[in-house]
Amino acid sequence: MTPGRPVPPPLAKPITVEHPPSVATNLAAAYGATSPGSGLVPLTVLRREPKDDDVEIGIEFCGLCHSDVHATRGEWRIPPYPLVPGHEIVGKVTRVGAAVTEFAPGDRVGVGCMVDSCRECDSCLDGLEQYCERGNVGTYGAPDPRNGDAITQGGYSTSVVVDRRFVLRIPDALDPAAAAPLLCAGITTYSPLRYFEVEEGDAVGVVGLGGLGHMAVKIAKAMGAEVTVFTTSETKFQAARELGADHVVLSTDPEAMDAAGRSIDVIIDTVAAPHDLNPYFRTLRLEGALFQLGLPAEDMPPVSPGLLIRRRLAYAGSLIGGIHETQEMLDFCAGHGVASDIEVVDASRLNEAYDRMVAGDVKYRFVLDTATLHQPSERADA
Amino acid sequence: MTPGRPVPPPLAKPITVEHPPSVATNLAAAYGATSPGSGLVPLTVLRREPKDDDVEIGIEFCGLCHSDVHATRGEWRIPPYPLVPGHEIVGKVTRVGAAVTEFAPGDRVGVGCMVDSCRECDSCLDGLEQYCERGNVGTYGAPDPRNGDAITQGGYSTSVVVDRRFVLRIPDALDPAAAAPLLCAGITTYSPLRYFEVEEGDAVGVVGLGGLGHMAVKIAKAMGAEVTVFTTSETKFQAARELGADHVVLSTDPEAMDAAGRSIDVIIDTVAAPHDLNPYFRTLRLEGALFQLGLPAEDMPPVSPGLLIRRRLAYAGSLIGGIHETQEMLDFCAGHGVASDIEVVDASRLNEAYDRMVAGDVKYRFVLDTATLHQPSERADA
Repeated sequence: MTPGRPVPPPLAKPITVEHPPSVATNLAAAYGATSPGSGLVPLTVLRREPKDDDVEIGIEFCGLCHSDVHATRGEWRIPPYPLVPGHEIVGKVTRVGAAVTEFAPGDRVGVGCMVDSCRECDSCLDGLEQYCERGNVGTYGAPDPRNGDAITQGGYSTSVVVDRRFVLRIPDALDPAAAAPLLCAGITTYSPLRYFEVEEGDAVGVVGLGGLGHMAVKIAKAMGAEVTVFTTSETKFQAARELGADHVVLSTDPEAMDAAGRSIDVIIDTVAAPHDLNPYFRTLRLEGALFQLGLPAEDMPPVSPGLLIRRRLAYAGSLIGGIHETQEMLDFCAGHGVASDIEVVDASRLNEAYDRMVAGDVKYRFVLDTATLHQPSERADA
Repeated sequence: MTPGRPVPPPLAKPITVEHPPSVATNLAAAYGATSPGSGLVPLTVLRREPKDDDVEIGIEFCGLCHSDVHATRGEWRIPPYPLVPGHEIVGKVTRVGAAVTEFAPGDRVGVGCMVDSCRECDSCLDGLEQYCERGNVGTYGAPDPRNGDAITQGGYSTSVVVDRRFVLRIPDALDPAAAAPLLCAGITTYSPLRYFEVEEGDAVGVVGLGGLGHMAVKIAKAMGAEVTVFTTSETKFQAARELGADHVVLSTDPEAMDAAGRSIDVIIDTVAAPHDLNPYFRTLRLEGALFQLGLPAEDMPPVSPGLLIRRRLAYAGSLIGGIHETQEMLDFCAGHGVASDIEVVDASRLNEAYDRMVAGDVKYRFVLDTATLHQPSERADA
C-alpha cells in the first residue's frame, strides 16, 4: 500500500555548496547532548541558508518536553549525536525565502514536532502530516530528505530554518513563552478531543497532571466539558481544581473509582509509564474512548476485552496533530485565554530542569529562554 | 450514574398462581444441562402463559453457539441448573397476548440473545438494549425481573414465550434453519460493521473463520467491502475464498502479514482464545479499528500503544446488537441472499455436536431441528 520513499534530490548540505567548510556563516548557538551520558552542553549548529520556501526564525523560547529527555539520553534509541532537542519553538521571523508570502520578518511564529513530511500521501493531503505514510520529519534528530538528509536540530537554539508549510502563526493574544508548550503538549491533547468531537457538556477525564495533563484540563474546560482529573496523589487535588477540574478522583482508591463508574465520555491518558487501564475503562460511558498519548518503554498490563465489549468502548491512540489543526488549536487557545503554566529557565539550568522533570517537579512545563544561550562559535558542532 | 434496578412487581411464577404445582400446563420439551459435567439431557421446561405483551413461539430451529458450550459446562461461571441453552431461535407464532398487534399466529419469528431489558435507560431508549445500563435479560440462565425473577430458559426447546418487544420478524426470503444463526453470529458481526459505517470499497479484515467469522465475511461482502480473511491454517484458504473472501492471509507468516500492512480499514476479530493483536494492528490503515468480539477466559497479550498512537487506531469491543438493528440485519440478509452455512442436527446428536464445535469441526454452525425433541413430560424439570 505504501510506495517507497522517493529518492531525494541530490542536494548537498547548503554549507558545502556555498562556502568552504571552514567559513560556515549561518550559525546558531544551542544546547544539546553529545552522548547518552553527556547531559546538555553548549553547541553551535549550522542552519541552512533559507531556500525559496524557507522561514528563518530567531528563537525566543523553547519548551522542554519529557521526550527531549528520553531522546537526548538515548532511552528510546541511540540518536545521531550531537543532538539539539526542542520542538516547542516560538520566535520571530528574521528572513524569508523568495516564495514565502504568508510570513514576513518580525512576525511571531512557532514550530512544533515536525518540520516536513512527504506532502503527497493521503495523510499529508488530508492535513494529517503527523501520520505521513512515509514518516514525518521530526524537528530534531531526523534525516531531512529535502535537505540532503541533513539531521534536523531542534529549538534549544537561537535560530532555526523551517519550510513555510510547517511554520505556525502565534496569535498576538498569546504570551510567547507560555505559548511554546502548545506546539507539543497543547496540540497532542487538543487533537484527540477534537477527533472525539468533544462539545459543551461532555464529560472528559484526564489521567496524569503533568505537561500534557494540565493542557488537557485547560483545553477540555475551554471546550465546555466537565472535567475529571484522575491522579495517584492527593497532593495534586488542589492543583487540579486550580486548573479548572470539576472533579478529582484518587485513582488508587477503588471506592472513588467505583463512584466515578460510567461517568466519562472520553479519557485523555497522559501517563507514559506502564499502568493498568482497566479501572479507567470502567469509568467510561457507553461508546466512550480512552486515548493513550504517552508511550511507555515497557509493556502495558493487558486490557480486558470484556470491558470494551460490554459498552462498545475504544482504546485509541493519537499523535500530536496536523499543521492546520495546530494552527486551529493556537487560535482556539488565544480565543479562550488558554496557555501553558510555565517556569522559564536559563540555559545554565537545563540539566537541573531535566532532573526535575524526571522527578515530576515542575508546574507544568519548563520553557528555555534562548536569550540566555551563549554566542555561537565560529565552527558548527552539529 | 446508574439508578438502582427498580424493585420488580411481586409477580409469582405463572404456574404457582394459576395451577397447583403438579398440573403445569404450558410445558415444552427441551435439552439442557443439569450440572457442569452432565452433558445435554432431555428436560421439560415450564413456559409462562402468554401475558398481554407476550408472543408464544413454536420453535422450529435453534442455532448452537460456542457460548452455549461455555455456559452449560459452567466454564465462565456456575449457572443456575437445569439450564436449557440456545439463543438463535426461529419458529412460528402459536399464540399472542391481548396487546400484541404486530405478530399473529403463523408468523415466522426469531429470538436472539436477549428477551428483555430495563426499557428506560439511555441505552434502551436509544435502541441499544444490549448495552442496557441495568443489564439486559439473557435468553437463558438469567433472572427475568418482569416475570418474578424466573430463570430464563433458551431455545433447545419446542416452545418459548417472549415479550413482543424482543421478537424479530424472519423475512420470507430466508431459509428458517439458515436464518437461526443470524440472531447471534449474524448480528454480532453486522453491528460493528455498521457502527464503523462500512461501505462500498472499504477494506474489511476478518480474523478467525468459525460461526462468527464466516458471517462477517458474507455480511461485509454484501456491504460491498473488499474482504481479507486472516487464518492460522492454510487448510482454510479454499473455504475462505468460497465464502467470498477477496484475500486470505496466513497470519503465522510474517512476510504475508507485512505484505498486508496498512491495507485494512476495520478488522472483525472473532477469535475467543488469547492471541497477539499487534500484528493485526499493523495491517490497519490510518484511523482503522479492530473490533474484538470473542471473550477469552484468560488475559490477552498486551496491545502496543505505539501502534495505536502512530496511526490513530482503535481497539474496540462490540456486543451483539439492538433489537431494531437486529431486524435491520435480518432484512439486509434477506435482501442480499445472506444466511449462515449450517449443518442441521437432531437432538440426539447435540453432545457430539458440542464436541465437534470445541474441535472446530463444523462449517460453520450447527442448528438443532427441534422436531427431533422428545415430548414434554408432565412435570417441568426447569
